[in-house]
Amino acid sequence: MKERRVSEAVIRRLPKYYRQLQELEKRGIERISSSELSNEMGFNASQIRQDFNCFGGFGQQGYGYQVSVLLKEIGSILGLTHVYNIVIIGAGNIGKALARYADFGKEGYCVKGVFDIRPDLIGKNLSGVTVSDVSTLDVFLAENPIDIGVICTQKENAQEIADKLVANNVHAIWNFAPIDVHVENASVENVHLSDSLYVLSYRLTNS
Amino acid sequence: MKERRVSEAVIRRLPKYYRQLQELEKRGIERISSSELSNEMGFNASQIRQDFNCFGGFGQQGYGYQVSVLLKEIGSILGLTHVYNIVIIGAGNIGKALARYADFGKEGYCVKGVFDIRPDLIGKNLSGVTVSDVSTLDVFLAENPIDIGVICTQKENAQEIADKLVANNVHAIWNFAPIDVHVENASVENVHLSDSLYVLSYRLTNS
Repeated sequence: MKERRVSEAVIRRLPKYYRQLQELEKRGIERISSSELSNEMGFNASQIRQDFNCFGGFGQQGYGYQVSVLLKEIGSILGLTHVYNIVIIGAGNIGKALARYADFGKEGYCVKGVFDIRPDLIGKNLSGVTVSDVSTLDVFLAENPIDIGVICTQKENAQEIADKLVANNVHAIWNFAPIDVHVENASVENVHLSDSLYVLSYRLTNS
Repeated sequence: MKERRVSEAVIRRLPKYYRQLQELEKRGIERISSSELSNEMGFNASQIRQDFNCFGGFGQQGYGYQVSVLLKEIGSILGLTHVYNIVIIGAGNIGKALARYADFGKEGYCVKGVFDIRPDLIGKNLSGVTVSDVSTLDVFLAENPIDIGVICTQKENAQEIADKLVANNVHAIWNFAPIDVHVENASVENVHLSDSLYVLSYRLTNS
């Protein structure tokens, strides 16, 4: 399926469609219309049709979408048919949680290395991967092609680690340090957990 | 400032404005125009002006926005002037990371209790709070008014915990279990860490 130019907003909705379709498949639902999908997800039905049209459309008028086909297509558009090699820098609580998150393996994300600066963490085993000294990261990256670098360090070290990853040909950064990192020639997702907490605070205050 | 009816999309942008303004304040920037803010954030300048107009507008034509005033106003709209009492259910890696996240205290979120089911975690101290047996959660909630319940359990237990929280007058649920919980009469934020990972995969595949 040939892809057209896709807006940022559509790209951000794709993971939500993907999760919803996985959920529908689990519930044994084989076919769904855009208006049923709209009810499930709270997105506008015409927006859903428009989004899918960006990729050539998968539905048939009066029939709707076949869940398994749509799931497979969106997974393929998201690149979830590939295997991605990951390193995690920072073996604190968040780093540990991610290293141990079993579903990553199922979805094609393979943790190849975990790094930390703390002597008491170096050498520990995390789901089959030994935590290495972060001073060996350069050498490791020179020898192992890595797709995604996950930053779980203190905020003070995040930018330096990001620069090091990119300098060593890592083209995607998933940053959990509570500060935005900025790099060129790589994609970055700065994760802000507190954004959703603020939304809750808003609703508590304004309800 | 009297609030008008505010769309979901605007509410979701507010935390981003708030973070950006904190950052600007740290950099010593006192005044900013909507087009400068647009450059910093990648949002359209007219969208920024429209968003702020939802709350009565804070700027002056030809002058722009005063960063400290705007920061204070948006913080107040988000309800960050209040103190929120929190409980965390699940003292695994994510629960620990959140309990130890020092910035929550600064921002008015106060962890009042942490609960788990595992005997080896019960009794442990997490940043000044002792982990309690989850079987005592009902009694605790009856005696302590709690604003936000944070769910960091296995996915199998998440819905049951959510129901228990809401039954005990907790009106906001921040859910990190990798399954959506659904409740009535409370606000829920289901956090999906993998969404941003999928976006990275998309970019790696389509760049």
